[in-house]
Amino acid sequence: MHTSEMIHTNPTPSPIPPDRLAACIEACFDCAQACEACADACLGEPETTPLLRCIRLNRDCADICATTGRVLSRLLHHEMGVFKAQLEACQLACEVCAAECAEHAEMHEHCRVCAEACRRCANECRDLLTGPGIGMPSIQHTPPADWHHINRED
Amino acid sequence: MHTSEMIHTNPTPSPIPPDRLAACIEACFDCAQACEACADACLGEPETTPLLRCIRLNRDCADICATTGRVLSRLLHHEMGVFKAQLEACQLACEVCAAECAEHAEMHEHCRVCAEACRRCANECRDLLTGPGIGMPSIQHTPPADWHHINRED
Amino acid sequence: MHTSEMIHTNPTPSPIPPDRLAACIEACFDCAQACEACADACLGEPETTPLLRCIRLNRDCADICATTGRVLSRLLHHEMGVFKAQLEACQLACEVCAAECAEHAEMHEHCRVCAEACRRCANECRDLLTGPGIGMPSIQHTPPADWHHINRED
Amino acid sequence: MHTSEMIHTNPTPSPIPPDRLAACIEACFDCAQACEACADACLGEPETTPLLRCIRLNRDCADICATTGRVLSRLLHHEMGVFKAQLEACQLACEVCAAECAEHAEMHEHCRVCAEACRRCANECRDLLTGPGIGMPSIQHTPPADWHHINRED
Repeated sequence: MHTSEMIHTNPTPSPIPPDRLAACIEACFDCAQACEACADACLGEPETTPLLRCIRLNRDCADICATTGRVLSRLLHHEMGVFKAQLEACQLACEVCAAECAEHAEMHEHCRVCAEACRRCANECRDLLTGPGIGMPSIQHTPPADWHHINRED
Repeated sequence: MHTSEMIHTNPTPSPIPPDRLAACIEACFDCAQACEACADACLGEPETTPLLRCIRLNRDCADICATTGRVLSRLLHHEMGVFKAQLEACQLACEVCAAECAEHAEMHEHCRVCAEACRRCANECRDLLTGPGIGMPSIQHTPPADWHHINRED
Repeated sequence: MHTSEMIHTNPTPSPIPPDRLAACIEACFDCAQACEACADACLGEPETTPLLRCIRLNRDCADICATTGRVLSRLLHHEMGVFKAQLEACQLACEVCAAECAEHAEMHEHCRVCAEACRRCANECRDLLTGPGIGMPSIQHTPPADWHHINRED
Repeated sequence: MHTSEMIHTNPTPSPIPPDRLAACIEACFDCAQACEACADACLGEPETTPLLRCIRLNRDCADICATTGRVLSRLLHHEMGVFKAQLEACQLACEVCAAECAEHAEMHEHCRVCAEACRRCANECRDLLTGPGIGMPSIQHTPPADWHHINRED
């Protein structure tokens, strides 16, 4: 992707370290694609009933990541409160979707790959929310119970 | 719009009173359209410099409202935390955009109309967040200083 | 929706009669919502297998209508070729989805309502493509075989 | 991005060679990001008036590419006509935006980078439309006059 180049050629300076911002934007677009594809893959499985919650969360996560990636791509007159609130929604959507996909990871490879994309995006959002330029987030979402376990498997 | 009919014909019952949910979904799509159109109208004004912040907030608000309208349109296996976080981001984006548009309302009719669409959407989001089915929101965004004043003008 | 007001307050004149443009934009947003909701409703039915094609087409149609509604909402420096190509994609997506939903209309009320929203949007797109301001479309998509039949039932 | 992995783990086989499909999907998401960022960068320049057409085309192109990337990410029950019509709209939007950005490439680095992302995406769309799995497109959009010249500079 051309994300870094676009940030560095923008006349408006980034309020966040450019490499961290680029990593988060790219993780958002990657996760949007993976979630869209995972919902489609789930629908093509012989047994869709156990995957219905996964499909639903995939679709929310795809929409939320796509919007977050766009909002983060704009530097001019950024509004820190909106930035943060959207990042928080994105982090949570990714965490919840990662946890659900992880439940099906042994059975379905697409869920394993999608969980990976979701976790990376959740991590990038958290890094932005807690790192330089934004500071501590106003709310701390409690990650799903198996979250740290999932992370350790990486 | 066919929103109410779609909710009432969905086999999954709405976790939120259907008329309140339909009102919020329609306000989201309406606000997405108004913000998209307001950004375009601002770009067509002879003097765009004083409108740059308005354009930026319009674009964020359009994206966030469109995503929120989609997430709210899904009833199956809804995840209340994601619902709430996205509604909170949407309420804030609408409040901030309404306040900015209101600054230009006397000069530009499109900003006046757009501020109206933003306020309605912010109000619908707040009603869902504080009403039956969701309960009190986890965070209380402080509305912009002139917010109540704007509301009183309605 | 505030669509008409937004068109009339835009400093850039519409290349298309404003009431026809507003009707098409609103049909796009309505159809995007209905398709999103219909996909969700289908996923909540006891038997999803016969609805898989419907779900897929709903999701394409929702995305395409949402984008078309946004593109049409912009008047400044509109590019007629892009306008037309996106309208053609939208008309076709709506026709195909309307025909599929109509297949399930007797069994599922949400498919009946969604088919109605799709047909209206397809009709509005065709009216723009063939009406004043755009003229005859460059390609004539052949509507699905049962299309006129469906229309006659309205 | 995880695009290739998602295609290869999908139980539904791709109607298009997977590496070509993945390249096109990634080009769509990349172009959506670059166009969003270029519109923002243009708005931050001291002189925005000569960039208004660029901003407008950037925004259309961002929306159309994002939708095309999503539609292409779905393999189950794909509808070739909708696929093609959306790809054609995407190719055209990218060509037109590439040509406009190229006009400003010497003055603004972000326009140079964005033109590159647009051209790559236009090329990937054309390759899909004319390659195995889809065949010849139903319409041949005439690229802007300076298109081949731009391409030769690569």
